[in-house]
Amino acid sequence: VSVRAGIVVTGTEVLSGLVADANGPWLSGRLRERGVVLSHTVVVGDRPEDLRSTLDFLARLGVDLIITSGGLGPTADDLTAEVVASFCGRPLELDTALEERVWAVVSQLHRRYPGAGEEAMRAGARKQALVPAGAAVLEPVGTAPGLVVPGDGFIVLVLPGPPGELRPMWAAATEAPAVRALLDRAGTLEEQMIRMYGVPEAELAATLRSLDAEGLELDGLEITTCLRRGELEVSTVFAPPARTRYDALAAALLERHGDTIFSVDGATIDVVVARLLAGRTVATAESCTGGLMAGRLTDLAGSSAYVEGGFVVYSNEAKTALAGVPAALIAAHGAVSPEVARALAAGARERFGADIGIGITGIAGPGGGTPAKPVGTVCLCIATAMEALERTVHLPGSRADVRDRTTTTVMHMLRELLG
Amino acid sequence: VSVRAGIVVTGTEVLSGLVADANGPWLSGRLRERGVVLSHTVVVGDRPEDLRSTLDFLARLGVDLIITSGGLGPTADDLTAEVVASFCGRPLELDTALEERVWAVVSQLHRRYPGAGEEAMRAGARKQALVPAGAAVLEPVGTAPGLVVPGDGFIVLVLPGPPGELRPMWAAATEAPAVRALLDRAGTLEEQMIRMYGVPEAELAATLRSLDAEGLELDGLEITTCLRRGELEVSTVFAPPARTRYDALAAALLERHGDTIFSVDGATIDVVVARLLAGRTVATAESCTGGLMAGRLTDLAGSSAYVEGGFVVYSNEAKTALAGVPAALIAAHGAVSPEVARALAAGARERFGADIGIGITGIAGPGGGTPAKPVGTVCLCIATAMEALERTVHLPGSRADVRDRTTTTVMHMLRELLG
Repeated sequence: VSVRAGIVVTGTEVLSGLVADANGPWLSGRLRERGVVLSHTVVVGDRPEDLRSTLDFLARLGVDLIITSGGLGPTADDLTAEVVASFCGRPLELDTALEERVWAVVSQLHRRYPGAGEEAMRAGARKQALVPAGAAVLEPVGTAPGLVVPGDGFIVLVLPGPPGELRPMWAAATEAPAVRALLDRAGTLEEQMIRMYGVPEAELAATLRSLDAEGLELDGLEITTCLRRGELEVSTVFAPPARTRYDALAAALLERHGDTIFSVDGATIDVVVARLLAGRTVATAESCTGGLMAGRLTDLAGSSAYVEGGFVVYSNEAKTALAGVPAALIAAHGAVSPEVARALAAGARERFGADIGIGITGIAGPGGGTPAKPVGTVCLCIATAMEALERTVHLPGSRADVRDRTTTTVMHMLRELLG
Repeated sequence: VSVRAGIVVTGTEVLSGLVADANGPWLSGRLRERGVVLSHTVVVGDRPEDLRSTLDFLARLGVDLIITSGGLGPTADDLTAEVVASFCGRPLELDTALEERVWAVVSQLHRRYPGAGEEAMRAGARKQALVPAGAAVLEPVGTAPGLVVPGDGFIVLVLPGPPGELRPMWAAATEAPAVRALLDRAGTLEEQMIRMYGVPEAELAATLRSLDAEGLELDGLEITTCLRRGELEVSTVFAPPARTRYDALAAALLERHGDTIFSVDGATIDVVVARLLAGRTVATAESCTGGLMAGRLTDLAGSSAYVEGGFVVYSNEAKTALAGVPAALIAAHGAVSPEVARALAAGARERFGADIGIGITGIAGPGGGTPAKPVGTVCLCIATAMEALERTVHLPGSRADVRDRTTTTVMHMLRELLG
């Protein structure tokens, strides 16, 4: 008897595509780790009838838990509490103690922006303190309280829209008695992630089919494959008793695709490379990626221990003057050539005094391509004092795709060289 | 009589949050520009009963158009065509000519990955050529054909999941007679975007309330505000007759917030700065952003005309040796100081021979903060031969937030200096 849930994300800015929905995917992960099966995530605008019809839809499906995000602000178009209260047949009641706590926060903001009008802000705080009868209040993280509202055979968990408020409130929500009772019923699910690089999704699908045909038990394993940034992610969700089945699957994948699997513990390539770089230093000289390679290497906290720095050398003059690429080399082979990538890597290594140099030169597009070197052609070199790894790749997609995919390719070359 | 639509995004990898949904927001924009009102976007996994219940929900709401994305692949869990056919009461029929066209593409892939088994791939192509009786076929962009399936009072437009296939197919879909008839009925909606920087959302909300109270007509204008990367976006959607109302609103906002509005034509700050940079050149020397500033400046095609390049100088040694920051300056003021930001800007300008130099030094965190210089402290300088703009900011959020927000702050300083 599994526990099922639906998520409702409210907000015209999300429905219209102005803002990407950060809450649905995040809540989905939290539900999964608590063993709850998510059936639908519904995005609706700020129209009360659309929210109401969605609540009705999910309740009729028989879900045990409906989570809403957004629509708890002080203004008139923030309607979630009112619609949920009406849907659950519970009148709104003013919680005067809560009103004072909300006002204590709001009045701080009011001091910073006195133009907004105290009367209007007082009214907003009062609105945010209206609680459906019998609902539990989750203390505000910003100004909006959350709510746990009992319905007829289900619970509605009402959370604020800003991810910075919703995420901290989740912990409190799981401790609310009604929610905790549901989660306790749900048991747990495990999620394991295997990451691969350089294998097409169709080939992995063929492997899974043949493992199934050979009698490997896959029942109870929910396997999802997903291509992202040129990597293939294999996520498997299962209840604890299926652990031995998962282990057998993981062993079979390692046996057949071990050369393309770079992570079995969920670590991203960035984390894998950071581990390999420990105790060494790296510097970059990049053209078409324009700084994104150095930017990616410094994404992780603590990267100053191994990143010395880098050159962004867009113009040929800069390649020569700053990264030390001989002008004659550029003249002979062109700025996008293995020779120039090699000289960039050497220049980065030497001028930054780093153990490892990375050289990147390519054509990100949309212009600049030629028949011999079409858009997407990128020459790469990673050099140490002892050895160098060189590659020329042809990457598909837009300018942004080519630039991003280039940094992924370099990450995997770093793993190859250092691993 | 408006035309209404619902979107159904299928895929366990989307529902589970492994992959961000790129299709819902994109289709939402396409519907809006065609004057269609979107009521719900629903994300479901690869369970046929969840897709079926969603189709039923949207049809009962009375939408005129249901668009599905995903679930058109060759494997058994790709069920969209089958579920939609059954929902619309139309049996699946094999389109043998379509099967051959699909196989022509698939067999190419098969040559590259012969391991997958020709029989299985043949069966996959046949599955993809099953068409609901009476449906129109949209020619495949990848291997999956799209479908226009007539229902009882509505149309289901079935599109493939990969954005690279869905987007090109949209144009063909709008030309399918049944879809075109709907879109022709819908008329058009206009969307206008005003972008602001340095104004809190609450203040804009107060302005809108007071304009309303003063009698400015806002009926017929759907105004959505959204904070993103430190900027406030005000999007307004309206039918053509409300144009004069929108113009009055835009004029009122310009009058009251002109100092914080940087774009009334929808142009992003990146585009605004790119226009201002025309005819000049820029170079960067960045520490805490680690290359992201140069990476952002080179995001746009054509940026090689004005970006000379940049230094990523993470270590103090690199700041001195490469960007020319005197070691004594770092010793006297610390690496994160207005003095070092100024020296970085000067070094970038001089060593790259650029008109404008950008210097960035700060503490992105999570470590490295002190009481005097907490995490989020960033010193910035933009210098030309004639003048310099300097600023020390304290940015909130995570390491990634601080790094990203720093680049936005610099973009707005560039606008201030050059505008």
